[in-house]
Amino acid sequence: MSDKAKKSKDADRKKHGSMKEDKIKKSDMKKVIKGGGVPYQPHVASQTLQVEATHDVSIGGGRVIIEAVTPELDGGRHPIKVIVGQPVVVEADIFTDGHEKIGCDVLWRAGDDSEWSRVPMVFIANDRWTASFTPTRNNRHVYTIEGWRDPFASLLDGIIKKRAAGLNLVVEAGEAVALIADATPTAAQSAALADLLTALRRAAEGSEEQIDLITSASTQALMVRGGPRHQVSRYDRELGLIVDRKAALFSSWYELFPRSITDDVNRHGTFRDVIEHLPYVQDLGFDVLYFPPITPIGLKNRKGRNNTLTPAADDPGSVYAIGSADGGHDAIHPELGTIEDFRALVAAAHDHGLEIALDFAIQCSPDHPWIKEHPEWFVWRPDGTIQYAENPPKKYEDIVNVNFYGDSIPSLWEELRNVMLFWVREGVRILRVDNPHTKPIPFWKWVIAEINRDYPDVLFLAEAFTRPAMMRELAKIGYQQSYTYFTWRNEKWEIEQYMRELSGAMGDYYRPNFFVNTPDINPVYLQTSGRAGFLVRATLAATLSSNWGVYSGFEICEARALPGKEEYLDSEKYEIKVWDLDRPGNIKDYIRQLNHIRRDNPALHDFRNYLPLATSNPQVIGYAKLTPAKDNCILTLVNLDPHNRQDCSYEIPLWQWGLPDTGSIEVEDLLGGYRFTLYGKLHQIALDPYERSAVVWRLIPPADWKDNR
Amino acid sequence: MSDKAKKSKDADRKKHGSMKEDKIKKSDMKKVIKGGGVPYQPHVASQTLQVEATHDVSIGGGRVIIEAVTPELDGGRHPIKVIVGQPVVVEADIFTDGHEKIGCDVLWRAGDDSEWSRVPMVFIANDRWTASFTPTRNNRHVYTIEGWRDPFASLLDGIIKKRAAGLNLVVEAGEAVALIADATPTAAQSAALADLLTALRRAAEGSEEQIDLITSASTQALMVRGGPRHQVSRYDRELGLIVDRKAALFSSWYELFPRSITDDVNRHGTFRDVIEHLPYVQDLGFDVLYFPPITPIGLKNRKGRNNTLTPAADDPGSVYAIGSADGGHDAIHPELGTIEDFRALVAAAHDHGLEIALDFAIQCSPDHPWIKEHPEWFVWRPDGTIQYAENPPKKYEDIVNVNFYGDSIPSLWEELRNVMLFWVREGVRILRVDNPHTKPIPFWKWVIAEINRDYPDVLFLAEAFTRPAMMRELAKIGYQQSYTYFTWRNEKWEIEQYMRELSGAMGDYYRPNFFVNTPDINPVYLQTSGRAGFLVRATLAATLSSNWGVYSGFEICEARALPGKEEYLDSEKYEIKVWDLDRPGNIKDYIRQLNHIRRDNPALHDFRNYLPLATSNPQVIGYAKLTPAKDNCILTLVNLDPHNRQDCSYEIPLWQWGLPDTGSIEVEDLLGGYRFTLYGKLHQIALDPYERSAVVWRLIPPADWKDNR
Repeated sequence: MSDKAKKSKDADRKKHGSMKEDKIKKSDMKKVIKGGGVPYQPHVASQTLQVEATHDVSIGGGRVIIEAVTPELDGGRHPIKVIVGQPVVVEADIFTDGHEKIGCDVLWRAGDDSEWSRVPMVFIANDRWTASFTPTRNNRHVYTIEGWRDPFASLLDGIIKKRAAGLNLVVEAGEAVALIADATPTAAQSAALADLLTALRRAAEGSEEQIDLITSASTQALMVRGGPRHQVSRYDRELGLIVDRKAALFSSWYELFPRSITDDVNRHGTFRDVIEHLPYVQDLGFDVLYFPPITPIGLKNRKGRNNTLTPAADDPGSVYAIGSADGGHDAIHPELGTIEDFRALVAAAHDHGLEIALDFAIQCSPDHPWIKEHPEWFVWRPDGTIQYAENPPKKYEDIVNVNFYGDSIPSLWEELRNVMLFWVREGVRILRVDNPHTKPIPFWKWVIAEINRDYPDVLFLAEAFTRPAMMRELAKIGYQQSYTYFTWRNEKWEIEQYMRELSGAMGDYYRPNFFVNTPDINPVYLQTSGRAGFLVRATLAATLSSNWGVYSGFEICEARALPGKEEYLDSEKYEIKVWDLDRPGNIKDYIRQLNHIRRDNPALHDFRNYLPLATSNPQVIGYAKLTPAKDNCILTLVNLDPHNRQDCSYEIPLWQWGLPDTGSIEVEDLLGGYRFTLYGKLHQIALDPYERSAVVWRLIPPADWKDNR
Repeated sequence: MSDKAKKSKDADRKKHGSMKEDKIKKSDMKKVIKGGGVPYQPHVASQTLQVEATHDVSIGGGRVIIEAVTPELDGGRHPIKVIVGQPVVVEADIFTDGHEKIGCDVLWRAGDDSEWSRVPMVFIANDRWTASFTPTRNNRHVYTIEGWRDPFASLLDGIIKKRAAGLNLVVEAGEAVALIADATPTAAQSAALADLLTALRRAAEGSEEQIDLITSASTQALMVRGGPRHQVSRYDRELGLIVDRKAALFSSWYELFPRSITDDVNRHGTFRDVIEHLPYVQDLGFDVLYFPPITPIGLKNRKGRNNTLTPAADDPGSVYAIGSADGGHDAIHPELGTIEDFRALVAAAHDHGLEIALDFAIQCSPDHPWIKEHPEWFVWRPDGTIQYAENPPKKYEDIVNVNFYGDSIPSLWEELRNVMLFWVREGVRILRVDNPHTKPIPFWKWVIAEINRDYPDVLFLAEAFTRPAMMRELAKIGYQQSYTYFTWRNEKWEIEQYMRELSGAMGDYYRPNFFVNTPDINPVYLQTSGRAGFLVRATLAATLSSNWGVYSGFEICEARALPGKEEYLDSEKYEIKVWDLDRPGNIKDYIRQLNHIRRDNPALHDFRNYLPLATSNPQVIGYAKLTPAKDNCILTLVNLDPHNRQDCSYEIPLWQWGLPDTGSIEVEDLLGGYRFTLYGKLHQIALDPYERSAVVWRLIPPADWKDNR
């Protein structure tokens, strides 16, 4: 260490270990070669030196270091996701050598903007800077960071200190005037700048008057945005940002089989029947109505009831055996109606505050037109037969899969995109994709980008029930929503662990949709829980996740199963069902209440704000959610045991508002519809499944809580 | 979800939430277009489709996903560091769509190798794969990963299952033979392959004999490495790896001022004096001998004793005021000797098991020849005067700094590199860089790469005492060793916290060198601790960090300070000192013991193996270090209180060898030189500074511990 640097070791050293206060380098200020008077040329450098720079946007780039940017997914390889109107808070470590002052901006733009928008970053501490911006367009965006050395700020810092020490400032004042003359003000500032320069040049060099002008707040304000920026560094990546519409983050799904919207198992339900049924779905408070495939169903090797290989003549078959003589992926199963009927349904749904989500399943029945029209899209065995789907030693002869490579590129990929576009142009803006993890990731990355380029409001939900890495990958490459393991998370510890995972780093890109059941999943818990279990699972899904979903039958506590399986007995997947939706014991009122609570409370419009709360009983889970402004807070306590009363102590998170453990808070019981006040942090509750399995409370802090902090 | 996929939901679903067992897709296998017989063309795709692929090494690239690679620093932006002979363990999440089997290799090579070396990765669990490789050359390396779909392994899996189910395998056998015919075996394997194919073709199609051949272990071994690889994905980055010689990770430094190697303050010490002194340094067990600058010292504005501005005529000045009429950065201060003397010193040091480390400080005295020869390398003020170093309102008139930009590129950068090369060619292989954080990061990145390209054995030590982000950055861009905050970490909690930080993620790139003192840092702790404190700090530095350093005077417990400062009184920085190295109370024997313990115990040759141990007394710190094979383990307990006896319970980490809490272990007290056995996990110890402040024990597990696991 050099002598003088040593002089100023100070209290900072203790704080950060040690910070040597070295001299400010004036390397970027105007200089005059001694005796020569050659003017200083900033940003001029020989090109002959091979400087391997990480951030080589311009000469001088890389001198300001930009690291540890958040949010950034996998080193910038994948985009993060937000919704329109949601602020993106960017942070980074930004610093340079020596003690030169720096400035930095966050730059952001939509993919189709030609110009960057800029937001000045502000210093937090310890080389950390931050800024936030709020995208207002549903589109793919990028953002990055620029940092620079600020010669005026550095000079000003020295002038202020030297003035306090009573030193002569003639030279420094001259340097300052030169930098001010170099400023590039906004149009609005240019008159002020001209006036300032006139005044500066009229004042005596280094005079009190001149130094007052240089150090004035107005000059500083002018120079912060307009002053020279030296050695600008640009971060080495433009980071991706998918800006979705709000339904990507907050939605309530209801799934039904249109063919079962009938009062007679011998009469196939139609789109016109579904139109009649819309008020029912709307009344339950849902906003997305999702159908399994509505495409023509193959005849060859058709499945019978309960997934048997021996169908009766009148069995309707599985909707997932896509394609017949009536058409393929862009056709409608004739018994459901016509394309006009479908259009009428989409319009009617819209009138009922519902949007339609369709299933997108790629596999084909042996009768699919593609097999004859595009044999090159399928795999043929050496014996000339088509390769059926199989899971050795099993073979599934009602289904063949396409081959995505070989001669299928680009024709199959383009055809699949065109199928999607067909439905999008028919007004469908949500596609729930069947088994995406068995199709190539590059295809999904490409096709989602293709669709979203022209239709950024189209949302893709990944129905991937597989290992964690693939499920995360599908979200990373573009899926806006994802199915989850929720259906198999029943214990308190595993729900809490899973919610911590989802609401943590994964929350930047993976949006869970908590389905309480699906046509494929009749959860074991519900098979044995009775009605109370349905209330438990509905409460958990609707309050833990901002996206949740129900497959019809759940609201009437349907749980009859194939013995020892997670399958429904007499599953709707293979037959037409008639449901008695007013069946005694149904929980329609409760679901309606949950959906209304969700709609009315912004704290439930996100999942990343999950806040686990301490409870004393492993059967009782407690958690809260707050809006960023803390002006809406929902606290939920659920007894996971559907059979027994559980007593429990729990904590009210008074600390969130800076309230003492002895503080009080007003509570609105949203299911019960009454209010009361809780005094102190620690409380007791009994939750008896024969009375109530859960409470959902809105906590109302004192109006003056912000003043008390 | 499609019907058949549903069938095989199984126990796995519970484990990972749910894994649908979908059919294996045979998309990459030989196929014949139905009725046409056109052979299948793998890897042929239209170029017209704009598929935005992340890993687009080849057509089909990106279908195998490679993510979450470790080690990887900052998304691959910076290299990690290892030493020659140290295994690099690489892991990644690697997976593909569907149930196709995959294979993957780690690829690695030195920067100057034209070919990759490959290591097959092995499956761990949950899509995680691993492989390790061991660089044997001191050089910069890169590594990456390749993954592919393995059609033979997929087919084989099906054949084995179908065979067990008694199915006809004629078609599958034909597919297998075709894949085996496509194999590209090594030279050693080609005869075996030819024999295999002959036998396969002689056997009846689908016969037991043919299937036996296809499923044999030898066929599998052949195909694992030689079989067709479909749709190869390459990871999107080649990750950097700096492979250093061992001294980068394990070194014991001793710092002295050559001019003080004298018996008379009026006689300037010389390199010849230092040669006479080498046995002393060697005897203490050090292996690096480090000198502050040995360059000519400026006369203008020379500093006097205790950093005064009024030097006496015979004051030698600060060694950091570099440059005089006698020369600049590539010259030797005449009073130290000649270049021949220096060469003799380097050679003699080598003979004593020592290597020389030199200080590299860039600043110049006002008398430095560069100021006249290269005025363009300095900053000149509008009044024609040179810009001195300053920390407003202070100005340091004995030092000027160079300007790295403007007209200094490339000439100054090249000159600084040439100065380094000059000393490197004189046999110096370690450069300790003064204040690197006040010079541009792009310069360091460039110059270290330049030097290490031809001299990969040159080590750079960053003397940056500044904020954490800059200290980390210097290590990321190439510095092999770094000074640390150790000197200011005195309490148990802060030492433990800091060691966790250094030995954790930082350990991949940041190699600490724990100096107990420096000419600039006379730690407050040592000013008040007496002799016991020196033993404490030496023990901590020598056993916590694999690199440690001592500035001469420490071994004789020198601690006289300028009042209220961390500076030494009558500092050697400004005057010639004569030391009585046999002063009563010296700790030379202890330091010698520590260095011998370090040398003899491989567990102390790393810092990333730091294992904190529970102790009951906040004044007593305990930790262990183990080799990866657990065949060497050093346990250290230190009483941080230099004045009082401290009693403490502590734990022996029996669990490291799978021993029960009631197990026993043999202990060698390395400072005391005796052995004993400890029974059980929990023990008590008293450490009294008047007897011993620390114990350093070698734990010797039972010879059969591996059998007991």
